Amino acid sequence: MQAAFFAGNQKFDTGPCVPVTPVGGQVQIRVAYCGLCGTDLHLFHGAMAHRLTLPHVMGHEMSGAIEAAGTGVHGWKPGDRVTVRPLDPCGSCPACRMEHSHICHNLKFIGIDRPGALQGLWTVPAHTLHRLPDSLGMREAAMVEPIAVACHDVRLSEAAAGEFAAVIGGGPIGILIALVAQARGARVLLAEVNEFRVKLARDLGIDTVSPREVDFPALVNERTGGAGADVVFEVSGSQAGAEMMTKLPRTRGRIVVVAIYGEAPKVDLFRFFWRELKLAGARVYEPIDFEHAIELAAAGTLPLDRLITNVLPLNRLEEGMRQMERGGDCMKILVNVQE
Amino acid sequence: MQAAFFAGNQKFDTGPCVPVTPVGGQVQIRVAYCGLCGTDLHLFHGAMAHRLTLPHVMGHEMSGAIEAAGTGVHGWKPGDRVTVRPLDPCGSCPACRMEHSHICHNLKFIGIDRPGALQGLWTVPAHTLHRLPDSLGMREAAMVEPIAVACHDVRLSEAAAGEFAAVIGGGPIGILIALVAQARGARVLLAEVNEFRVKLARDLGIDTVSPREVDFPALVNERTGGAGADVVFEVSGSQAGAEMMTKLPRTRGRIVVVAIYGEAPKVDLFRFFWRELKLAGARVYEPIDFEHAIELAAAGTLPLDRLITNVLPLNRLEEGMRQMERGGDCMKILVNVQE
Repeated sequence: MQAAFFAGNQKFDTGPCVPVTPVGGQVQIRVAYCGLCGTDLHLFHGAMAHRLTLPHVMGHEMSGAIEAAGTGVHGWKPGDRVTVRPLDPCGSCPACRMEHSHICHNLKFIGIDRPGALQGLWTVPAHTLHRLPDSLGMREAAMVEPIAVACHDVRLSEAAAGEFAAVIGGGPIGILIALVAQARGARVLLAEVNEFRVKLARDLGIDTVSPREVDFPALVNERTGGAGADVVFEVSGSQAGAEMMTKLPRTRGRIVVVAIYGEAPKVDLFRFFWRELKLAGARVYEPIDFEHAIELAAAGTLPLDRLITNVLPLNRLEEGMRQMERGGDCMKILVNVQE
Repeated sequence: MQAAFFAGNQKFDTGPCVPVTPVGGQVQIRVAYCGLCGTDLHLFHGAMAHRLTLPHVMGHEMSGAIEAAGTGVHGWKPGDRVTVRPLDPCGSCPACRMEHSHICHNLKFIGIDRPGALQGLWTVPAHTLHRLPDSLGMREAAMVEPIAVACHDVRLSEAAAGEFAAVIGGGPIGILIALVAQARGARVLLAEVNEFRVKLARDLGIDTVSPREVDFPALVNERTGGAGADVVFEVSGSQAGAEMMTKLPRTRGRIVVVAIYGEAPKVDLFRFFWRELKLAGARVYEPIDFEHAIELAAAGTLPLDRLITNVLPLNRLEEGMRQMERGGDCMKILVNVQE
C-alpha cells in the first residue's frame, strides 16, 4: 500500500505507506478515495508551512473502511464503511466549553496539523467517524466532507423554503451550497465568472450568470420584486465578492462569509447600518452537518457524479494539483488511494 | 415664538416660527427641549444637502406638549405630553411590507427630509407620537430619542444578563449603549480616547479605558477568561474601530455596527470565518425601543442630568454646534426652544 508524501516545494513522493497501529480510542482505516481541496492546493503552494511536519501526508475528504480498532473503541468494527470529520479539538478551551469545539481555539485539523488520508492505511481518533450507508458508493462518499461544509453554511444562513439565495462564487463549495440551499427549498441564483464552471452549474440545474456579463445586483433586485436577496453566500474570497455581497441583501438580509481572505477587504459597513444587514462567518462543520451531508449524498438527489470531474491514482497526485491550479476545467478531483 | 432656520454654509437665522395648521392625521406640538445630534452637526457642515430644502429647520430629539390636533387624530388631545419618533415610512415598499418600516426604502426622516423640532410650534404625523409619563421632566424627555437608539442597538445585540459587552466609542450613543446594556445586566467595558468623555463615563459608573493607553483586546481577553466578548458595539465609525471590533469577540460573538462610515473600512473577514463571528447593522429604532427608552428614562436609573452638559436658548444654537465641533468638553447639548 502506498502513501503520497509532500516534501515541500510543490513536490510529492509516492512511497510505501507507513501504517500506524491504532492505540486507545483510535481506529485504522483502509482509505478508498480522497478528494483534493483548495486547502490542499494552498499547502502545495507553501501556505501554512509552519503547521506541517515534512514529509507530510495531506488529505481530509475521504471514504474508506475500518481495518483495525484500538482499545476502548466501542461501536466500530473492521469492515465498517466510514468517513472522517477531520477535527481534533482540545476539549478545554473557552470555545470547547461553549460547545463550539469545531472552532476550538487549539483545533488540530487532521490533514494539516496531523497526517491526512492520502495513504492506504490511516489512523485517526474514533470520535471523528461517521458511518456510511451501504447505498452510498465510496466515490460519492469522498464528497461528504465538502457537502458537510455546504450543509453547515446553509444551516447557519437559516435559509428557509421559498427564500431567495444569491451565491457569489461557483467552485465546488459554491456549487454545493447552491445545491444544498435548493434541496432546502430556496430559490438560488449563482454568480460565477469562469465559463467552464458556469456551464457545469447550469447543467446541474443551478440558475447561473456571470457578473461580468450582467448587472448581478440589478438582476437579484429584479428577481425579488425590488426587495433584495434573503440570503447571500460570499464564497469567492475576493475584493469584488466582498463589494458585491453588501449590494444584494434585502433589509435585515443575511450574508454568510464562507471564503478565506488573504488580506482584509474593504467592506461597505454603511450598507450594514442602512439596511440592518446581518453577517455570519461559517467555518468547517459540526457532527449534525456530516449526518445531513451523508443523508443528502445517500438520497442520490445531488449530482455528485457530475461534480467529480477526474479520478486519479495516488502517484498522479501532482497532476491533480496542477489541474486545480489552472482551475478552468475541473471541479472535484478524487484520488483512488488504493490504486 | 421663534424658530432656527438653517441657511446653509454653517449659518442659522433665528426668526418668528411659522406655525403649520395640523390637517388630517397630524398634530401640532409646542416644543419644550430639543437635543443636538451628531447628524445635525453633519447637516451644519453641509452633509446630505440634497435632502434639505433651505431654509431648513433641524432637530429630532425633543419633548413637548400637544397644542392642536387635526381631523382623524384619536387618543391625543391638547396638553398631552409627548415625544416624537421622527420616522415617516412609505408603507408600501418591500421593507415596509416585511415590517421593517423603520428602515423603509423611501423613509422620510423628520428633521432632515421634513422640518424638525427647533421651532416653537411643530406639526408632525400623529403616528409618530409617544406619550410621556408625568414623572418624566421635559429636559430628560428630550433624551428619549437617543436612548431609543441605544435600546434598539442593545436589543438587536441580544445581550443577556451576565454577558460581557465591549463598547468602542464613548460619545452620547456609546455611553447610552453602555448604560442600557448595564441596565440589562451585562458587564460592560467601554473604549474611548477623549479624556473628558473617559472621565464622564467613569463618573457615570461605566468601566472605561483608553485604547491608546491599554491593549484593549488583551484586556477584554483577560476579563473574559480568554474567551472574548459576547457582544461588541462599534460606535466609533473609524477605521481603527472597524479593526478593533473583530479582535474582541468570542467564538460566535456578536458585533453590532451602529456607526456611520464615510468610506468603506477594511474589515478582517478572515476573523469572521475563523471565529464564526456575527455582525448586525442597527439603524434608528422601532416603536418598542421608544417605549423601552421612556420606561428607562422615567425610572430615573439613567444619569441623564449628567449627560446633559449644556442647555442653550434657541438663538445660541450655532454656539452649540461649535461646541459639538470641538467635541472635547461636551456630551449632550439641549436647546430650550421656548426661550
